[in-house]
Amino acid sequence: MPYERLEKDVAMMNESGINVVRIAESTWSTVEPQDGVFDFSHIDRVLNAMHKGGIQVIIGTPTYAVPTWLVRKYPDVLAITPTGPNRYGPRQNMDISNKNFRIHAERVIRKIMEHVKDHPAIIGYQVDNETKAYNTAGPAVQQLFVEYMKTKFSSLDKLNKAFGLDYWSNRINSWDDFPSAVGTVNASLSSEFARFQRQLVTDYLAWQAKIVNEYKKPGQFVTQNFDLDWRGYSYGLQTEVDHFAAAKAMDIAGIDIYHPTQGQLTGAEISLGGDVARSMKGGKNYLVIETEAQGFPQWVPYPGQLRLQAFSHLASGANMLEYWHWHSIHNSAETYWKGLLSHDFEPNPTYTEAQTIGRDFARLSNKLVNLKKTNQVAILASSEAQTAFNAFSFGWGAKEKWNDIARPIYDALYRMNVSVDFADPSTSNLEAYKVLIVPALYAASDSLLERLNRFVKNGGHVYYTFKSGFSDEYVKVRTTRQPGIIQEACGMTYSQFTIPDQVTLKGDPFKVGAADNIVKTWMELVTPTTAKVLAYYEHPVWGTYAAITQNDFGKGTATYVGCLTSNAVTEKVLENVIRKAGIWGADQATRFPLITKSGVNQQGNMIHYYFNYSATPGTITYPYKTGKELLSNETVQSNKSVTLEPWGMAIIEESR
Amino acid sequence: MPYERLEKDVAMMNESGINVVRIAESTWSTVEPQDGVFDFSHIDRVLNAMHKGGIQVIIGTPTYAVPTWLVRKYPDVLAITPTGPNRYGPRQNMDISNKNFRIHAERVIRKIMEHVKDHPAIIGYQVDNETKAYNTAGPAVQQLFVEYMKTKFSSLDKLNKAFGLDYWSNRINSWDDFPSAVGTVNASLSSEFARFQRQLVTDYLAWQAKIVNEYKKPGQFVTQNFDLDWRGYSYGLQTEVDHFAAAKAMDIAGIDIYHPTQGQLTGAEISLGGDVARSMKGGKNYLVIETEAQGFPQWVPYPGQLRLQAFSHLASGANMLEYWHWHSIHNSAETYWKGLLSHDFEPNPTYTEAQTIGRDFARLSNKLVNLKKTNQVAILASSEAQTAFNAFSFGWGAKEKWNDIARPIYDALYRMNVSVDFADPSTSNLEAYKVLIVPALYAASDSLLERLNRFVKNGGHVYYTFKSGFSDEYVKVRTTRQPGIIQEACGMTYSQFTIPDQVTLKGDPFKVGAADNIVKTWMELVTPTTAKVLAYYEHPVWGTYAAITQNDFGKGTATYVGCLTSNAVTEKVLENVIRKAGIWGADQATRFPLITKSGVNQQGNMIHYYFNYSATPGTITYPYKTGKELLSNETVQSNKSVTLEPWGMAIIEESR
Amino acid sequence: MPYERLEKDVAMMNESGINVVRIAESTWSTVEPQDGVFDFSHIDRVLNAMHKGGIQVIIGTPTYAVPTWLVRKYPDVLAITPTGPNRYGPRQNMDISNKNFRIHAERVIRKIMEHVKDHPAIIGYQVDNETKAYNTAGPAVQQLFVEYMKTKFSSLDKLNKAFGLDYWSNRINSWDDFPSAVGTVNASLSSEFARFQRQLVTDYLAWQAKIVNEYKKPGQFVTQNFDLDWRGYSYGLQTEVDHFAAAKAMDIAGIDIYHPTQGQLTGAEISLGGDVARSMKGGKNYLVIETEAQGFPQWVPYPGQLRLQAFSHLASGANMLEYWHWHSIHNSAETYWKGLLSHDFEPNPTYTEAQTIGRDFARLSNKLVNLKKTNQVAILASSEAQTAFNAFSFGWGAKEKWNDIARPIYDALYRMNVSVDFADPSTSNLEAYKVLIVPALYAASDSLLERLNRFVKNGGHVYYTFKSGFSDEYVKVRTTRQPGIIQEACGMTYSQFTIPDQVTLKGDPFKVGAADNIVKTWMELVTPTTAKVLAYYEHPVWGTYAAITQNDFGKGTATYVGCLTSNAVTEKVLENVIRKAGIWGADQATRFPLITKSGVNQQGNMIHYYFNYSATPGTITYPYKTGKELLSNETVQSNKSVTLEPWGMAIIEESR
Repeated sequence: MPYERLEKDVAMMNESGINVVRIAESTWSTVEPQDGVFDFSHIDRVLNAMHKGGIQVIIGTPTYAVPTWLVRKYPDVLAITPTGPNRYGPRQNMDISNKNFRIHAERVIRKIMEHVKDHPAIIGYQVDNETKAYNTAGPAVQQLFVEYMKTKFSSLDKLNKAFGLDYWSNRINSWDDFPSAVGTVNASLSSEFARFQRQLVTDYLAWQAKIVNEYKKPGQFVTQNFDLDWRGYSYGLQTEVDHFAAAKAMDIAGIDIYHPTQGQLTGAEISLGGDVARSMKGGKNYLVIETEAQGFPQWVPYPGQLRLQAFSHLASGANMLEYWHWHSIHNSAETYWKGLLSHDFEPNPTYTEAQTIGRDFARLSNKLVNLKKTNQVAILASSEAQTAFNAFSFGWGAKEKWNDIARPIYDALYRMNVSVDFADPSTSNLEAYKVLIVPALYAASDSLLERLNRFVKNGGHVYYTFKSGFSDEYVKVRTTRQPGIIQEACGMTYSQFTIPDQVTLKGDPFKVGAADNIVKTWMELVTPTTAKVLAYYEHPVWGTYAAITQNDFGKGTATYVGCLTSNAVTEKVLENVIRKAGIWGADQATRFPLITKSGVNQQGNMIHYYFNYSATPGTITYPYKTGKELLSNETVQSNKSVTLEPWGMAIIEESR
Repeated sequence: MPYERLEKDVAMMNESGINVVRIAESTWSTVEPQDGVFDFSHIDRVLNAMHKGGIQVIIGTPTYAVPTWLVRKYPDVLAITPTGPNRYGPRQNMDISNKNFRIHAERVIRKIMEHVKDHPAIIGYQVDNETKAYNTAGPAVQQLFVEYMKTKFSSLDKLNKAFGLDYWSNRINSWDDFPSAVGTVNASLSSEFARFQRQLVTDYLAWQAKIVNEYKKPGQFVTQNFDLDWRGYSYGLQTEVDHFAAAKAMDIAGIDIYHPTQGQLTGAEISLGGDVARSMKGGKNYLVIETEAQGFPQWVPYPGQLRLQAFSHLASGANMLEYWHWHSIHNSAETYWKGLLSHDFEPNPTYTEAQTIGRDFARLSNKLVNLKKTNQVAILASSEAQTAFNAFSFGWGAKEKWNDIARPIYDALYRMNVSVDFADPSTSNLEAYKVLIVPALYAASDSLLERLNRFVKNGGHVYYTFKSGFSDEYVKVRTTRQPGIIQEACGMTYSQFTIPDQVTLKGDPFKVGAADNIVKTWMELVTPTTAKVLAYYEHPVWGTYAAITQNDFGKGTATYVGCLTSNAVTEKVLENVIRKAGIWGADQATRFPLITKSGVNQQGNMIHYYFNYSATPGTITYPYKTGKELLSNETVQSNKSVTLEPWGMAIIEESR
Repeated sequence: MPYERLEKDVAMMNESGINVVRIAESTWSTVEPQDGVFDFSHIDRVLNAMHKGGIQVIIGTPTYAVPTWLVRKYPDVLAITPTGPNRYGPRQNMDISNKNFRIHAERVIRKIMEHVKDHPAIIGYQVDNETKAYNTAGPAVQQLFVEYMKTKFSSLDKLNKAFGLDYWSNRINSWDDFPSAVGTVNASLSSEFARFQRQLVTDYLAWQAKIVNEYKKPGQFVTQNFDLDWRGYSYGLQTEVDHFAAAKAMDIAGIDIYHPTQGQLTGAEISLGGDVARSMKGGKNYLVIETEAQGFPQWVPYPGQLRLQAFSHLASGANMLEYWHWHSIHNSAETYWKGLLSHDFEPNPTYTEAQTIGRDFARLSNKLVNLKKTNQVAILASSEAQTAFNAFSFGWGAKEKWNDIARPIYDALYRMNVSVDFADPSTSNLEAYKVLIVPALYAASDSLLERLNRFVKNGGHVYYTFKSGFSDEYVKVRTTRQPGIIQEACGMTYSQFTIPDQVTLKGDPFKVGAADNIVKTWMELVTPTTAKVLAYYEHPVWGTYAAITQNDFGKGTATYVGCLTSNAVTEKVLENVIRKAGIWGADQATRFPLITKSGVNQQGNMIHYYFNYSATPGTITYPYKTGKELLSNETVQSNKSVTLEPWGMAIIEESR
């Protein structure tokens, strides 16, 4: 902070209704300026000021960025990645499995905890931040990996066979010869190494949580700030963290969600990030640990957008919303990642809009927090399948990753106002869903695929894309006809695939028009066995093959999409599946840019959010029981229309 | 192989007429699982099964990929390249000049040879695979290079002068000071280092061949699987191997040829690769060691294409055709490089089409193998000129390489059905040709250029492009007027050159239309001395200069193309030269997409192949003596039309 | 030189009027072939031949490229940069602060000086060449940097505060812990390191100059060949050298200027480079140490252009013009950077045109050299602001650099025939100007900004762009409302900024038409306080904010351009400011492609140059006192029109 203004800050926070702040994260060099020398004065100062101002505090452990003295004394705390040893400077440059890092991290965490644990302002703790393995892959990590492999594979023969290591003389005939996975061309090995790196993250976070748990008081929580696959904003699911596994050690899930605004604001990332965070802990409410205020220069929100975003988080099940950050920073990397306040610390339009959010939250929180959501559709996401798919994508040089397949499907569901959860292979309650969406389940064990067959047999409906079922859990391609085990439920098979070149769907079967009737990037040459064909390819040579099939199997159906479809076709096929499942409902009468989300509040009433993600007014017909619009406090009759301002919203609580 | 199915494989090979397989290549880690521990059981197993099934075997030495234990014990077997030390994982990562690599490579080769040499299934051996120096450039290699330079240059003064090393203080005043060539900015030095690296390849392959020759039986052959410049497919000539020199140690030339298919299939790469392989050993037939079956996803062949490709290889002089590979691999880098069989090992359309090829080969081989081809046109290709051209291209940042100049000329000849050989400067029979095509002969000795002058004087016809004759064999630009020594034959000269900006050929002299009448990328400001001008530049400033000239010299002509021309103009100028040479013949009545190739079979009869490289039927008028179409066994009268199916063909044997 | 032809070269130089050559630069390996072994024979030979031919000589110290023996003995002379240790081969690869380099550089310089100092051909010396720090950043350099920081910052607390190092735990709590600046994400630190690197250059050049000064004779000069930011040609101001500081040790400024020609020749780089060089030494005449003759292939000049260029240099104040280089080089990196002669050493059109320049220079030099220029407009350029701006640009991934802002403004002034100087913050005579152009003065001390406020108050006129005044001299963003201190003079303020998306200027206030009325890349949301608004944004949301304002402050005006404007709008706003300043004059009636430059010659007469930078004839009306056109020796009456040939010119000396 360039000058002392803590009291002023607290006052301005109070004026905007801010009642929680997160502090201490990334401050190792201030808390422990030299090895074993501790200084908690700045933490005390802020804790006391916040407490005095009625603001609660989340304490972050400071381990996300390492101090200079630690690196000078123990250079090996910096990770060695495939591109060489890391340099001092950025955050997230350390090897989280390094012993010297762990010894000093534990000491500073314990020292902080001992010092702050009794402070009344604290409501919870965040362990580390946006933790990943940061591609640590040096010799010490390799040693850990070999130990991991010894445990996992009882013999090298099994490993060589499972991974096909005879190819190009990669066979490992002695554990001592085990080469670094960094240079491998074998996706079985690289995917296993990625799984091992995810395990490092899970273990590291559980280790930190365990330390903090020794000190935390009843009622306090431990969380982590998980983040999504970053493409200049929060785009899709992570491959670097197994969120479902890592969240187990947390009391509550936390996430950061960053997204475009202005003309590009759709709410999709808010919805996606929320669905991920909520699903991590089996549907429990979550914390939005960070989201943008002004953010990047191109993200300065239009009037109404900050407010629209805030309530959208709640509508997905968030119980808290924190901005990164309070004020804009005057030096270093995030100078142009602007906070609620600009560098001048003065009120500005974004801050002023935040004040209205604070007021409404204060007034309506009791109705809005702890929203319970129950979905009938889930997307099956597997870190293993994602990593394995990404290893091959659509061939050498292809840029598409798993998220490029999955995100458009998510977005199609979002536009159709179909609410979803995410499920991972470890879930035990797949059967709670009526529809499973399975994008490119590239690597999967026999048992998972058999379970998916049973899901259909028992009355479930599955939407599969291409490449699902293709390889086993070791990324070995199945030796059966494709798509392997799931062909039983899908009633189709293929042996060849190619890249479409001027291929369309025969006869525009979904009536989407020529521009949308195209086949992109990938096509499997599908032959139905028992399935009916929803679409054939239109092409001089490939026209005899099916593109999309649907099979009745047991009490359910399995729909298989063998090619990359346009968004319009994706929507049509999804609609087909959802109608099959009998859950096409009232919410589907509303479509993007008008978005609806719902849940049951702690009073047991249904809450319906309606958001207008556009610059022009919108109108929805409210299809539910008469209720009350909470912002205006006006009654809304069933089947009456409700007008939404540009970037505006309504929140209707059904009357009992 | 994920499960045991060798007998089934042999049966399916038999069903498709496969009568040769190549094994053991890249299997070092299975053959020698630990240092000095050998296990030949998998080789024996396959050899015996193949022999039992009547299938002959080529044994590959396994040195193309190194085992883990070798790298662990002798890390220096991995090459150090300009980007640093190689990593374990990929093939082709070793330093082929490394002593530890050589010692262990020799031992494993000898052990295999001792073990297999008497097996009756073996017809020949392949030494290593797609061998190159892989840019090995570490300190040990540098030491070898200095020794090479000491031998080549008797004194540093000569070297400094020849390479112009005074420039930027690069002068070397003591052999001890000789710096690594890796960082040099001097193309004379980098080109010499490239030549030295090619010599490493030649020596290494001769060394392996010598070892294998000690064991091989009469009638068995030694070959190598040479490959072409790779641009996602086999594009053009190699700079990393001197094919003409390296092939000397082989009994028969081998090559791999990969190419686009589907709508992009032209046959040009099959023709080019065949012409290169045939020319390596002075016109002898060659083996296609590898070509694609299904290949990349985008290469799954349309019906008819696999067959069209197979016979096209024969038409260029191939005596064998092997697919890489029998079945698709279930793990690692080439998972999506699909074989004849998909991962499911079941018959598929590509395999089914291969069965027809097998049947026809079995029936017609006697008429088709050992085809003798005699061409009157040769393309002069020189590794030295190619490397030197590439060092400068068209200036800083230019992406064009020598192949970007040469390949369009090759393709123009291909489209015109002008059959060519490749000749390199070491050839002794230049005079066998009527026409020489000389693309960008950037670096050449005085004697080579004088020989080309004599070639013209004695009645030959040369088509030169720009930049030919520009520098000597040490990549020192000539101090005479350009194009140096060949100006005598060319009758023109230039001193300046520039990059064309909206330049065309004056008056569209070749009547190709505005779109094709352009001058691209490079233009020399040519002034004729005795030559006539075929085309002037059209430009406000450069309009007084000639673009293309033709000079009568002695009994021949030299045509000089001073700029990069469109394909249409290239064709017109080539036609002009070929007509000059009096060899514009009946085959030139046929044009791409209808392709004709011919030769004399072992019965002494002319064989004429006609290929239709298009998706629509084509018709040719058969201009030769009445003959028999071998596939249909129907008689074809002279001057009668023959219809070719889409992607179809005819093979006519002239009657005596 | 491939063969002996020194006498012939001197004769051809004489024929083209060349009377100065530069030699010995980069020849360390010839002058000192082994450690301590010296050979001056080639210098003597050339010196004697030139003297005999009446040609004067500039001797360059040879330190720009290091010999092989030095690198072998002292590998640490090669700089370690952020990408690793440099390799031998290129020039400019050394660490100019390295002790071993310095010891040997000093010895060779002294040996040369001792040997040549009395030679009568020598008129001056050039120390090193195009010197920079070449991003040297290894451990030894880091040690020097820490010493520099200790001197600059009395305590680490001050440093931590000034640079905001608490962020991401970058705080430095002990000088021993000071991490390398290479990995930093803190622009305050990286900008300080850049300033330190510039200081290395200043110190190194002063050190060389001091050595040479010990030997040089009265009347001889010491110069440096400074160069500009290189983008394939001389584009803009350097960040790697503080030209104003480094030039202090020189007797006369030297520069190299390279630029596109043919259809892209505008003269702008000649003007810009000249203005920079002239400004380095406070308006004194300068030497063009290098410029192209034929240059790159794409730069072969059209007829007339070489001549036009030569006189353009004089018109900006050059007193000498040297071509790089006499003849084209036959080996190595600059083979295609062609000299006056091609590789054939024969006359060619470029050389022939140079002969006319030589003749005219010989005839007119007395009228043309030592031209005194007095400008009323200056561009404020600060290495600190430039480096700091570049650190952030317009956000992550933005490619624009400071020169992308400043150069279009320079070009607009050039097109309008407004002559400018460059001023840097160290200048003492800011008040000599009526107009200051201040592009993106991103980092600036309070005192500089206050001085700019005073400049306006006292009657000056300032044209500011966005981002000026934003941060202090340590690249800490100011905590006041933006644009910080200068808002006093500018009468406007802003707190938010964004990236324009379909934003224009409301009502096309400058009547430039739709295509040019756009707002690009960056927009600040400006609110005027006392300023009047020259342009508002047109946009549904941002339309209430100002884009361009102008404020009367004291006796002057401050114009603030808050967004990136089109060239057309930039010209209009500049015109507005220049008119305000009352200096819109007769030269502004002429516009590009007709360019005019003027000054007072050593006879005290006004010289007016008129250049036609186009391929079509142009006409100007001569607005000054009747004078004589020096090339034709014809009288030109006031207000009479003068026709300029394509790429032609006129030089009019006003009569007394």
